[in-house]
Amino acid sequence: MTRDRKKLLRAMFDAAVAAAQPDKVVPKFLPKPPKGRTVVVGAGKASAAMAAALEKHWKGPLSGLVVTRYGYAVATKRIEIVESAHPVPDHNGEMAARRILETVRGLSEDDLVICLISGGGSALMALPAPGLTLADKQAVNKALLVSGANITEMNCVRKHLSAIKGGRLAAAAAPARVVSLLISDVPGDDPAVIASGPTVPDPSSFADARALIERYRIAAPAAVARHLAEARDETPKPGDKRLRGCETQLIAAPQASLEAAARAARKAGFAPVILGDAIEGEARHVATVHAGIARQVARRGQPAKAPCVLLSGGEATVTVRGAGRGGRCTEFLLALAVALDGAPRIYAIAAGTDGMDGTEGNAGALVSPDTLARARAKNLNARAMLENNDGYGFFSALGDLITTGPTRTNVNDFRAVLIEK
Amino acid sequence: MTRDRKKLLRAMFDAAVAAAQPDKVVPKFLPKPPKGRTVVVGAGKASAAMAAALEKHWKGPLSGLVVTRYGYAVATKRIEIVESAHPVPDHNGEMAARRILETVRGLSEDDLVICLISGGGSALMALPAPGLTLADKQAVNKALLVSGANITEMNCVRKHLSAIKGGRLAAAAAPARVVSLLISDVPGDDPAVIASGPTVPDPSSFADARALIERYRIAAPAAVARHLAEARDETPKPGDKRLRGCETQLIAAPQASLEAAARAARKAGFAPVILGDAIEGEARHVATVHAGIARQVARRGQPAKAPCVLLSGGEATVTVRGAGRGGRCTEFLLALAVALDGAPRIYAIAAGTDGMDGTEGNAGALVSPDTLARARAKNLNARAMLENNDGYGFFSALGDLITTGPTRTNVNDFRAVLIEK
Repeated sequence: MTRDRKKLLRAMFDAAVAAAQPDKVVPKFLPKPPKGRTVVVGAGKASAAMAAALEKHWKGPLSGLVVTRYGYAVATKRIEIVESAHPVPDHNGEMAARRILETVRGLSEDDLVICLISGGGSALMALPAPGLTLADKQAVNKALLVSGANITEMNCVRKHLSAIKGGRLAAAAAPARVVSLLISDVPGDDPAVIASGPTVPDPSSFADARALIERYRIAAPAAVARHLAEARDETPKPGDKRLRGCETQLIAAPQASLEAAARAARKAGFAPVILGDAIEGEARHVATVHAGIARQVARRGQPAKAPCVLLSGGEATVTVRGAGRGGRCTEFLLALAVALDGAPRIYAIAAGTDGMDGTEGNAGALVSPDTLARARAKNLNARAMLENNDGYGFFSALGDLITTGPTRTNVNDFRAVLIEK
Repeated sequence: MTRDRKKLLRAMFDAAVAAAQPDKVVPKFLPKPPKGRTVVVGAGKASAAMAAALEKHWKGPLSGLVVTRYGYAVATKRIEIVESAHPVPDHNGEMAARRILETVRGLSEDDLVICLISGGGSALMALPAPGLTLADKQAVNKALLVSGANITEMNCVRKHLSAIKGGRLAAAAAPARVVSLLISDVPGDDPAVIASGPTVPDPSSFADARALIERYRIAAPAAVARHLAEARDETPKPGDKRLRGCETQLIAAPQASLEAAARAARKAGFAPVILGDAIEGEARHVATVHAGIARQVARRGQPAKAPCVLLSGGEATVTVRGAGRGGRCTEFLLALAVALDGAPRIYAIAAGTDGMDGTEGNAGALVSPDTLARARAKNLNARAMLENNDGYGFFSALGDLITTGPTRTNVNDFRAVLIEK
């Protein structure tokens, strides 16, 4: 029984990943070949795999340049792949951004730019506005993160310190038609937020950015203050003629992957209950809430009757306090196992859709009703290991890790909690 | 509109509290008067109010003694009310426990003991086993809390260091009939857990307690080790003849209060979605998960279609890092407002059913879509105030606190997140 449940949970995860595979989704959204040239650009952790998928299915000539994270390159024939640093940008990313801008400049309206955007793209092709350095941008970024500003406000400032974000890439490509294919890893799937929206108009202004710097008392380097005051080269606004030929397509997203897992659950006779595609918070507390809902299902048939599966996506966080190993997913699962305390009939999986949970090489792990009992038999103290952030050590000792290798896509974490009848 | 929504949320909270009011629920569960004497004992934060309600509705003679928290006494005529300390037990609680045991000793099988139990009862009538001191018990308690032991395991040890827990009170009352009326504030509503089950048989043994002390390497005082080794006066086990006349009635619980709120929601045209009656975790992260689910409802109609109300109960925790004021509920709500970031059509309430959120005199507060905008207009930085644990200051400045005064019952926190169509 336990083996069957674990198999089903794994199948649901595989369905979630498959729904976000560039090779599967890119072909469905390819535009018609243009009269003129086709140029491919892009940035993100999944973007090299997107480029490879595009190459494979594209009919006609093709050239271009895509930047991805170190180690995420794949073999391509016509599109050049370069690598740069994430999450802290480096010189390679800056160089790549410059080359991407050059690549799209001087095109005609008969030409087509296909822009392959995925999570991480913002750091991977960071290009400071003229007169600014990466260090200037990072100083402001750090201050923003602790300022109390929300994501929209932070992005307003960031876009006004960049030479490529906030629609500037698309503006550079005008008058060519620009089709952006997006794989989302952000809550809300807003194309203006994914990789800071290099091909999406930006309603915010230099004046807005200055007001935010003031409101949140950001200590900006002198060059940044000067740049914002000079307010040269505003981001393209909605309705900007240069972006008239722009189009964005969300080709993969956390919700679509949850829906794919939901179909797999339904097929197996478990009613899917999607709690949300952007469930965030400290992993161990996200876990206690999932455990509370699962127990409510088991005990009261609320908010759904068993047999069912609770599904959620989104990026949890881990505040490291211990010296253990493991990522968000094993931390979530270890806390879940502790909170469920051996409750019968409840099983769970959590795994990164990118195939990486932290730095240990596993994608995630599995929990079953006997998890704590088996741990006790091996003299593992689950609570102590949770305190030590040692989710990897815990599930590794139990043989309950899940390993997929890098999936070359990313629609964030996947979690499923299955409750039997 | 906002005023209507806030009114509805407040009405739902009021319904939840009303469903747990001793005056409303005690009369429904009163046993028939016995041939012999009726003796009332009990302990807990709600137990004085339960005694008053019982007195009011009891037909026939009555006497007894109930212990409650300092400040929670109410006027009674026939049942004596004494007060003691919570959460750290004091001498008054020990004296009260001794007197309660004396009160029930020497009764006949024609007599009836009504035991009024509610949250906090364990500390309020803490009585160490002969040869042990309160300090001994507390030393073990502290070590247990950080040991990795779960609640069942901790209770096993505690019950074997007590002269009143784990069914010992009921055993002392034999051969009288014992009817326990319980107001639950614990996950699962297990009568053996509420106030450590003074009238409920205990399946665990001295040997179990010793094994746990060893497994979790608890540094027990010498007197404790000796007491556990001597193993005199075992707790009454299931099937123990002395507890044959025992009966427990759950008269109020988080779930029943959520169901009452659900009825109020339904009447107003909002589909209730009960997520769980024991949703726990750090308040700010419990909030991000609630926000994620609410956004999913608004955006995708999952796990339920708007108009609906997400309901949850249970005790969140707050790790204090700042110097601000406020309890679990205002912390939850401030984090919720930040996570919702002004999302339209979403409103929320969170409040302690005991009428107390922390130490500021408010029960809780309210959130509406304009919460952050109004805060900004008053120059309040929501994120910074959350970092400073200043939920009280935040909602106080907005005029969005809810104040009820002490309700003299407690079925834990109440949370409702309403999503309009």
